[in-house]
Amino acid sequence: MMKKKCVLAYSGGLDTSVSIKWIQEKYGYDVIALGLDIGEGKDMESVRQKALKVGAIKAIMLDAKEELAEEYLLPALKGNALYEGKYPLSSALSRPLIAKKLVEVAEKEGAVAVAHGCTGKGNDQVRFEVSIQALNPELEIIAPVREWKMTRDEEIAYAEKHGIDIPVNLDNPFSIDANIWGRACEAGVLENPWLEAPEEAYQWTAPLELTPDEPEYITITFDKGKPIGLNGESLKFVDIIETLNVMGGKHGIGRIDHVENRLVGIKSREVYENPAALMLIQAHQELEFLTQPREMAKFKPVVEQQMSNMIYEGLWYSPLMNALQSFVEETQQMVSGVVKMKCFKGHAMVVGKQSSNSLYDEDLATYTKGDAFDHDSAVGFIKLWGLPTKVYSQIHNKKPVLTK
Amino acid sequence: MMKKKCVLAYSGGLDTSVSIKWIQEKYGYDVIALGLDIGEGKDMESVRQKALKVGAIKAIMLDAKEELAEEYLLPALKGNALYEGKYPLSSALSRPLIAKKLVEVAEKEGAVAVAHGCTGKGNDQVRFEVSIQALNPELEIIAPVREWKMTRDEEIAYAEKHGIDIPVNLDNPFSIDANIWGRACEAGVLENPWLEAPEEAYQWTAPLELTPDEPEYITITFDKGKPIGLNGESLKFVDIIETLNVMGGKHGIGRIDHVENRLVGIKSREVYENPAALMLIQAHQELEFLTQPREMAKFKPVVEQQMSNMIYEGLWYSPLMNALQSFVEETQQMVSGVVKMKCFKGHAMVVGKQSSNSLYDEDLATYTKGDAFDHDSAVGFIKLWGLPTKVYSQIHNKKPVLTK
Amino acid sequence: MMKKKCVLAYSGGLDTSVSIKWIQEKYGYDVIALGLDIGEGKDMESVRQKALKVGAIKAIMLDAKEELAEEYLLPALKGNALYEGKYPLSSALSRPLIAKKLVEVAEKEGAVAVAHGCTGKGNDQVRFEVSIQALNPELEIIAPVREWKMTRDEEIAYAEKHGIDIPVNLDNPFSIDANIWGRACEAGVLENPWLEAPEEAYQWTAPLELTPDEPEYITITFDKGKPIGLNGESLKFVDIIETLNVMGGKHGIGRIDHVENRLVGIKSREVYENPAALMLIQAHQELEFLTQPREMAKFKPVVEQQMSNMIYEGLWYSPLMNALQSFVEETQQMVSGVVKMKCFKGHAMVVGKQSSNSLYDEDLATYTKGDAFDHDSAVGFIKLWGLPTKVYSQIHNKKPVLTK
Amino acid sequence: MMKKKCVLAYSGGLDTSVSIKWIQEKYGYDVIALGLDIGEGKDMESVRQKALKVGAIKAIMLDAKEELAEEYLLPALKGNALYEGKYPLSSALSRPLIAKKLVEVAEKEGAVAVAHGCTGKGNDQVRFEVSIQALNPELEIIAPVREWKMTRDEEIAYAEKHGIDIPVNLDNPFSIDANIWGRACEAGVLENPWLEAPEEAYQWTAPLELTPDEPEYITITFDKGKPIGLNGESLKFVDIIETLNVMGGKHGIGRIDHVENRLVGIKSREVYENPAALMLIQAHQELEFLTQPREMAKFKPVVEQQMSNMIYEGLWYSPLMNALQSFVEETQQMVSGVVKMKCFKGHAMVVGKQSSNSLYDEDLATYTKGDAFDHDSAVGFIKLWGLPTKVYSQIHNKKPVLTK
Repeated sequence: MMKKKCVLAYSGGLDTSVSIKWIQEKYGYDVIALGLDIGEGKDMESVRQKALKVGAIKAIMLDAKEELAEEYLLPALKGNALYEGKYPLSSALSRPLIAKKLVEVAEKEGAVAVAHGCTGKGNDQVRFEVSIQALNPELEIIAPVREWKMTRDEEIAYAEKHGIDIPVNLDNPFSIDANIWGRACEAGVLENPWLEAPEEAYQWTAPLELTPDEPEYITITFDKGKPIGLNGESLKFVDIIETLNVMGGKHGIGRIDHVENRLVGIKSREVYENPAALMLIQAHQELEFLTQPREMAKFKPVVEQQMSNMIYEGLWYSPLMNALQSFVEETQQMVSGVVKMKCFKGHAMVVGKQSSNSLYDEDLATYTKGDAFDHDSAVGFIKLWGLPTKVYSQIHNKKPVLTK
Repeated sequence: MMKKKCVLAYSGGLDTSVSIKWIQEKYGYDVIALGLDIGEGKDMESVRQKALKVGAIKAIMLDAKEELAEEYLLPALKGNALYEGKYPLSSALSRPLIAKKLVEVAEKEGAVAVAHGCTGKGNDQVRFEVSIQALNPELEIIAPVREWKMTRDEEIAYAEKHGIDIPVNLDNPFSIDANIWGRACEAGVLENPWLEAPEEAYQWTAPLELTPDEPEYITITFDKGKPIGLNGESLKFVDIIETLNVMGGKHGIGRIDHVENRLVGIKSREVYENPAALMLIQAHQELEFLTQPREMAKFKPVVEQQMSNMIYEGLWYSPLMNALQSFVEETQQMVSGVVKMKCFKGHAMVVGKQSSNSLYDEDLATYTKGDAFDHDSAVGFIKLWGLPTKVYSQIHNKKPVLTK
Repeated sequence: MMKKKCVLAYSGGLDTSVSIKWIQEKYGYDVIALGLDIGEGKDMESVRQKALKVGAIKAIMLDAKEELAEEYLLPALKGNALYEGKYPLSSALSRPLIAKKLVEVAEKEGAVAVAHGCTGKGNDQVRFEVSIQALNPELEIIAPVREWKMTRDEEIAYAEKHGIDIPVNLDNPFSIDANIWGRACEAGVLENPWLEAPEEAYQWTAPLELTPDEPEYITITFDKGKPIGLNGESLKFVDIIETLNVMGGKHGIGRIDHVENRLVGIKSREVYENPAALMLIQAHQELEFLTQPREMAKFKPVVEQQMSNMIYEGLWYSPLMNALQSFVEETQQMVSGVVKMKCFKGHAMVVGKQSSNSLYDEDLATYTKGDAFDHDSAVGFIKLWGLPTKVYSQIHNKKPVLTK
Repeated sequence: MMKKKCVLAYSGGLDTSVSIKWIQEKYGYDVIALGLDIGEGKDMESVRQKALKVGAIKAIMLDAKEELAEEYLLPALKGNALYEGKYPLSSALSRPLIAKKLVEVAEKEGAVAVAHGCTGKGNDQVRFEVSIQALNPELEIIAPVREWKMTRDEEIAYAEKHGIDIPVNLDNPFSIDANIWGRACEAGVLENPWLEAPEEAYQWTAPLELTPDEPEYITITFDKGKPIGLNGESLKFVDIIETLNVMGGKHGIGRIDHVENRLVGIKSREVYENPAALMLIQAHQELEFLTQPREMAKFKPVVEQQMSNMIYEGLWYSPLMNALQSFVEETQQMVSGVVKMKCFKGHAMVVGKQSSNSLYDEDLATYTKGDAFDHDSAVGFIKLWGLPTKVYSQIHNKKPVLTK
């Protein structure tokens, strides 16, 4: 009789390698290893070889960078998505994609289960499992690392016993996750928030001391909120991201140091590197300031905060996310134009912007003679704008509400 | 019979100097000039002399820096107030203070009117007039510059005719406003948002090319949200601000370039320099991340955005502002501790933070053996957290709501 | 030479009749009267005759009830739009439609101006003028009643002098506006908010004393948020509204008494009758509770409040409104089903609801043996849900934050 | 050696009676029964006797109605707290009080544990446990009903075996919870949301058919948001609540039928009766409309929704709740006055309201000759209010953003 099958999100590291064997032993399932290239910079062929060597019955490697960019990063960029105002949600955005690929492969391969390598205290287990349930609530979900309760030493012993190679970088003091939208680094000395993050925590970005002493200018072209070119040359979105990661990294752009509130109820200290993400979000936001009317500048951030929280909290496949995206998509109709950025010493400054949809009207804004603004209107405006305050003051007998 | 009196907010510049004469001529009022030192760096004695020379019957000069800091900037700092996420509201925060001083002096001097030098297209006229009405709805408000409709040349002719000295810096291409919370610069070449702001637009901050090549570290101590010391030494809040303006400026910290949505319905391009404000807001925010629970990190930004909008829109003396401040004040009970900042090449990076109220719990966060977090709880949590999504998916027949 | 033309929103009442003459005299324009049937119950042919008799060069009468229902009321219903949680925005929703018709007719007839009969203290002048500017910023806008500054007596004298018939109901103590979404009544004795609104203020709804002593049941069928049938019979949305107005009115349903905050800065006391609107909003909302997941029930009200405010404030044609509608439209995908309502003594109670998209899962909700809910999950859920609170409590030395 | 002690929230029903024995057997703890009179209408002395008879070593009965009213219901009333816009949170508001009493008694009696009778699928387990942890994170929490996993029959057998009396009303088809703020009823036939709730589900309110045929008027006096009198007579808040429950119930006021989103991820159908709560919230809200300025009417609902969600979700003792209450408290400074209510056929209509703080200004609102409103101001106001829309329209080439 054929064994049941489980599709495992496989990274090539110790945890997921041990998981292959452990799922076989514990659940009696055949394991199909699924490796996704989302920009971590790994050699996918060697990942594939390793999976098969450890015992996977099949190893599927997919390049998912473009799908990640188009289907997940782009909506987030249009929503200027930053968790707690700081973190561009790079790891969080890859989870629903990986979940979707796991489900697709499981359905195609006739598997009954999918598995991921998360521990029990992170956000990613939530993101994976909620996403998988949203996409196919019938699939069993296995979380070997959370379930096996082995210590690090026991895990190494288990690996050795089963002939699984121990990675050479096992003594890396940090826990790392990366894709084209950014790199996250946690644990080790970072666990003390009073200590400055050591230079070893960073890999994508140069320290300011080593960045070029000349600024570099770049223009980014947007069409309806989507980056479509650099320096006047058309480029795919995924290529723009990869180009800006290199360029931004060279100038030391994109470091974030954050003590964040996890979904599972604890605070953790994270160090992120997101050169392209931060550059693109900033450029995009500045173009919005130029092209969107005031009331949109006031309300869109409310939608953005909700979207950011939902991405962080694993609710990408909620129907509410669709509605938020419909809102955001509609707001992007006029967000076309060019943003000029100056990259220098860790800064990506927007120093110029233009758009045929610009609502900045020099004739209205100018202080020169050409001024088209009707100054007299202000008198009536102020009277009615301030009327509730004036009535309040009159009623309350000239005892004004002073600042405390 | 005694003439009626008007108290004029007097800066010593051409507009308010001409206003003294113009109010006398047009309204027949005696003018009392009120000059406030809020950190613009002017010689107040010469301002006083000038007012009297032009024809004010009295000239009152007040040092209001500390009152500005304690009563207006501190509540804004506790609320991390940034208009449109960027501008620390430096000019906006000084307007209710100036309005209050105008009203106080008017009441003391028995004046029937107060006057300000704003034009008809800015935000400040609204802030002044709504604030004045809130504090004393009986006072007449005169806005000479908005009312007289003279061109610049006519104004100069008027000044010459009345023996008013023309300031030497009249050909300054920019329109400037400043106080200890920051410096605003607009008009001139800035009116084209595609052009990079020229170096002359900046006065408080060094260009990155000229900043020191060595980082400078500083610690800021907070007590219930209020900065009370630098580098371990106790300092008044106003002195902390002035110290950080100098230090931050030296390192090129605090430049902002913004196309903002004015209350009067237009967009305008502003260049700001806010070294101390931005450093303090960032340090304060980071200490909040360490000491406030998750739900506060989620909801306080909603209050902050409302507070920022109201400050921008001239509603400082609304009873709603009092309620927002009560909220914020309560959230600051636990925001005490020390923040370590690295100032370097235009950056003020928070590289360390500590607090006896820290909610970051290394035992819970750690990935080492000491881990006190209950990993099994995650299983139940995920089940219930994801239950609405799962039910939704089951009902909708395995036709999941995929991302668009 | 041909005279310039102005299209006037014409009601047949004294104000707009006088306006025809006044615009001719004051502006020298020919006047085209535009009358819209939006459900006020007027005889449009007599309105047309009157316009021509008073001197309009043309009188155009349009039945706009269905367009009002489909293009304006339906999006508002999907957004459960209630200003200040009470008022279904009936008058507010008709203004952008009337503005659009004015602009369309003006463009077709080659007119240079449009005119409306609003005074200077209401919301409607704002709604008309902002809408007109949004649709065609080149058109001149005339507001005769606001401009002429005649007293009521002077206006009557003017009418008599120009041979304009004085309407017989001129001594109606109230100011009325109505369309199929509801009827608004203000002024007269209503201006004292301590006095109970007199029965004469109501015209569409029976007083409870005169309503039937037997309840009446009705079912309303929704498809993706749109009402498509009553009692199982398919009906056009506009017909459902008119049917429910009669039925609800008979049972005394739909009275609202509100002291509301106007856009122009004052409070005013309004009495509304909105039988169909309130019944449909309530039924729709209840169906949403059945079919939308929790996070949508939490966030959609934020969008709804924004939408309601914008409708009230005349910003229907803002691009933000489009984005809000895109959001709402997306949320309606699953809002299909049947709602059973009991109409009785002024109440329209939802007493039953069903949907093939229902997310209410009896197997999960039940307290009987069939319970499919995993009770053990709750333990883990509570641990992580309460973890921030617990850590906070532990840090703060067992000195809990008690309620004040 | 002395046994460890556990304080059990004791209701006198089967579940908590069995819990006394079960905790003794399973945990080996002595059980102290704590009964709270919060307005359920039980004979507390017989509850006490029953606890002792079943085996509690001590039974403490406390009248907590006034504490509930003053410390929990009043802040909720000031915040117009309604979960999902409908439910006044009556059960939810009692949980933090009961938790506080459990902790107080446990600390006084030297107990190591506290226990509650909730199942694993409700909200109340979360509210109890999070509140207890907030107040004393050292206490062990026992949830017998969730832990024992007995069926109803097994539980009855267990009771009979241990000589515990089986309550006579055990075949009540509904699950009931009640206190002075309201009565909740769930389960049984209510589990089918298509069926109209049967009359037996209601106990506090008369069916409309049996209510008086004459309306009854009542005035409620508020001082800074707190109800202090009825019909001109001073009364304690708790007495006002109890009086209005009787009076409202007689007129059929206060029924709510809701399919609500539980914190634990499911939807459940609840039938509530909240006569006093709904009457007071409505009266309070109407007084706020009269006395609070516009911007407060816009923003306070945001705070109210947050407060309602947190009460529902068991976060009463979060420091954020304190901050929300500080906000609300400040907004109540002007909410004093009298509200006239007409109770009739299930309606509690506010038909009149007055306040010395009223911001309704008849001179501004009137359409009579006394009109003090400056109509000309409207022209300027509209120009600037609509300016962003006009500029948008001009830029976008007269291709306006029409409604979809």
